[in-house]
Amino acid sequence: MNIREESLKKHYEWNGKIEVIARCPVDTREDMSLAYTPGVAEACMVINEDVNKSFELTRRNNLVAVVTDGTAVLGLGDIGPEAGMPVMEGKCALFKKFADVDAFPLCLKTKDVDEIVRTIYLLSGSFGGINLEDIAAPRCFEIEKKLKECCNIPIFHDDQHGTAVVVLAGIINSLRVVGKKIEDVKIVVNGLGAAGTAISKMLIAAGAKNMVLVDKRGIIDENDTLLGEERQNLAKITNPEKLTGGLDVAIKNADVFVGVSAPGIVSEEMIKSMNTDAIVFAMANPTPEIMPDLAKKAGAKVVGTGRSDFPNQINNVLVFPGIFRGALDCGATDITEEMKLAAAYALANHIPENELNEENIIPSALDRSVAFEVADAVKKAAIESGVIR
Amino acid sequence: MNIREESLKKHYEWNGKIEVIARCPVDTREDMSLAYTPGVAEACMVINEDVNKSFELTRRNNLVAVVTDGTAVLGLGDIGPEAGMPVMEGKCALFKKFADVDAFPLCLKTKDVDEIVRTIYLLSGSFGGINLEDIAAPRCFEIEKKLKECCNIPIFHDDQHGTAVVVLAGIINSLRVVGKKIEDVKIVVNGLGAAGTAISKMLIAAGAKNMVLVDKRGIIDENDTLLGEERQNLAKITNPEKLTGGLDVAIKNADVFVGVSAPGIVSEEMIKSMNTDAIVFAMANPTPEIMPDLAKKAGAKVVGTGRSDFPNQINNVLVFPGIFRGALDCGATDITEEMKLAAAYALANHIPENELNEENIIPSALDRSVAFEVADAVKKAAIESGVIR
Repeated sequence: MNIREESLKKHYEWNGKIEVIARCPVDTREDMSLAYTPGVAEACMVINEDVNKSFELTRRNNLVAVVTDGTAVLGLGDIGPEAGMPVMEGKCALFKKFADVDAFPLCLKTKDVDEIVRTIYLLSGSFGGINLEDIAAPRCFEIEKKLKECCNIPIFHDDQHGTAVVVLAGIINSLRVVGKKIEDVKIVVNGLGAAGTAISKMLIAAGAKNMVLVDKRGIIDENDTLLGEERQNLAKITNPEKLTGGLDVAIKNADVFVGVSAPGIVSEEMIKSMNTDAIVFAMANPTPEIMPDLAKKAGAKVVGTGRSDFPNQINNVLVFPGIFRGALDCGATDITEEMKLAAAYALANHIPENELNEENIIPSALDRSVAFEVADAVKKAAIESGVIR
Repeated sequence: MNIREESLKKHYEWNGKIEVIARCPVDTREDMSLAYTPGVAEACMVINEDVNKSFELTRRNNLVAVVTDGTAVLGLGDIGPEAGMPVMEGKCALFKKFADVDAFPLCLKTKDVDEIVRTIYLLSGSFGGINLEDIAAPRCFEIEKKLKECCNIPIFHDDQHGTAVVVLAGIINSLRVVGKKIEDVKIVVNGLGAAGTAISKMLIAAGAKNMVLVDKRGIIDENDTLLGEERQNLAKITNPEKLTGGLDVAIKNADVFVGVSAPGIVSEEMIKSMNTDAIVFAMANPTPEIMPDLAKKAGAKVVGTGRSDFPNQINNVLVFPGIFRGALDCGATDITEEMKLAAAYALANHIPENELNEENIIPSALDRSVAFEVADAVKKAAIESGVIR
């Protein structure tokens, strides 16, 4: 049986991957009068006087909504809200198991930006944070931006920022392995959906000076209005050498390649045209832009993929549980650039210098200690950023 | 320490009364590839082809949203969504403990009827049912009606129908105790909010012919446009003797009094003016319309209240867990009149004839076997009504 067939069988057996349980007893009359009427009225009145008490008297302090519209689920595309649910439930299971965050999946029957924003805003009093998931670009950018403006709880689009943080952590350690600095290297990002856009911004925030961004139509150009605002803005601050052309032009003499694009589109010749000690993150799923053995043969020093069956799995399960654990624990009202950068450095620093090598640039996706180290760093950065309730 | 102070202390200790846990392992690489990527794609594709599979492959089959706008929370009135949350969490705990239904609380930051309807509709693909809670009348009527039209999962406003079902069950058994028939008795309902309105409709559906409905301004009149559509419709089909005046007029020669109104507004004289073997359900909380000892002294044969410290507690925890357990188990797409009537009779019949007496007309609110008996009856009625997915 292959993995998808086996998984389907398991899904029928599990009968749902999450469950809502009670944390209070309701066995006796006294239990019921404490957990419910008439006693509960007191907790209601305390929150009515100070809404922040909802973070102490209800589960809101530990509760994140995982929200999708089902438009960009895995590599499957727009499959609708109900069909997106198995992924959302899986995500919620990871939140709980990796960081003891209670996460609840909500799949919305609309693709309208303003309606999605309004719906999440109307629900925001019931949660301590919102994890946006599998919403197609460019709508995801606008939704996140508008929600950050109207909600006073952390909003985090994991496909963008979770991926960007784990990629930055991997690149920090890869550069340590090859002895280069982020300020000095040329980095090509190929594929400018939600993930590629956020990765590019994160690398710039971390100090990258020479970035070349490539989408399906080639190296992006600030005058190309088809790109949309988000990518046009990136075009303005990247590509210092004013290169024009396709990926083959961009990748020449690059030190780092980051692919969040399509299977098999990077050739051995392209890798050969990169600088020595090339770093290649080929993260297309399930088949990378170039297979690790081919990339290595063509001269790449460090290779990462999204897959668990090769070394250096770039997986955002290393990020989102810890980001929210940290944000919830300190009562953060936002996820700032500083908090994301802190998460990336904490993740990179999890690997001791003497264990760092080209096949070990990122912690294992199964390492349960990572989330709590990331959380500590995120908490510290949130407090320094002053985004605390 | 009084019950409210003790409850507040417990709420700080509980740190939330619900919790979201994972039902699948994610400990190994294989676990993760089955519960999450890449395996999960298969479950997504199966639901994409047949949306009803979402009831088999996700938790939707056991999941109910408990939704409020915080406008009619307990007797506290309009305290807002966050302050309503302790009640909603308590309700969810009862759902789980009494019927193993996973219930999740959502408090909405809007009081607009159409916005509430739209928000719940947009979320309806993530749940197997919707329990509306503590939404003020008359908006609750319109919200429920519109949701029943646009959603293909059960919609149930517990303050209306849960209360109506348990009251009907109590009246069925009280009439058995005093040897009268519902068709023959005069029933006064005092208080025409969500509960009083639904109770009146339920009693009519169960066969009551002589109902007199009273609100703050007296016996309701079909020509009074201030009543709103819902109550005007009721005025048209009740009060066959065309009585006019206040509660004192209405209650004279009545066999049954049902109060969902205000503390202490029923006098001993009013009870004395009722027929022999009077049945008095005085359900104002926490202080009844008349205290049981006074009602008994004035001649009432059966007295019920909302309180656990007197016999005959009329508590809708006897109803909502079983209603949803039954509806979820048979894949019901609606909660029909027949299902509610079936629930009321199942609840009444839970007490064996030889144990029935004026101090034992309704099961204990703590009886864990009730929900499953109610569920069986509801399931049977749903199948007979043909409202199955």
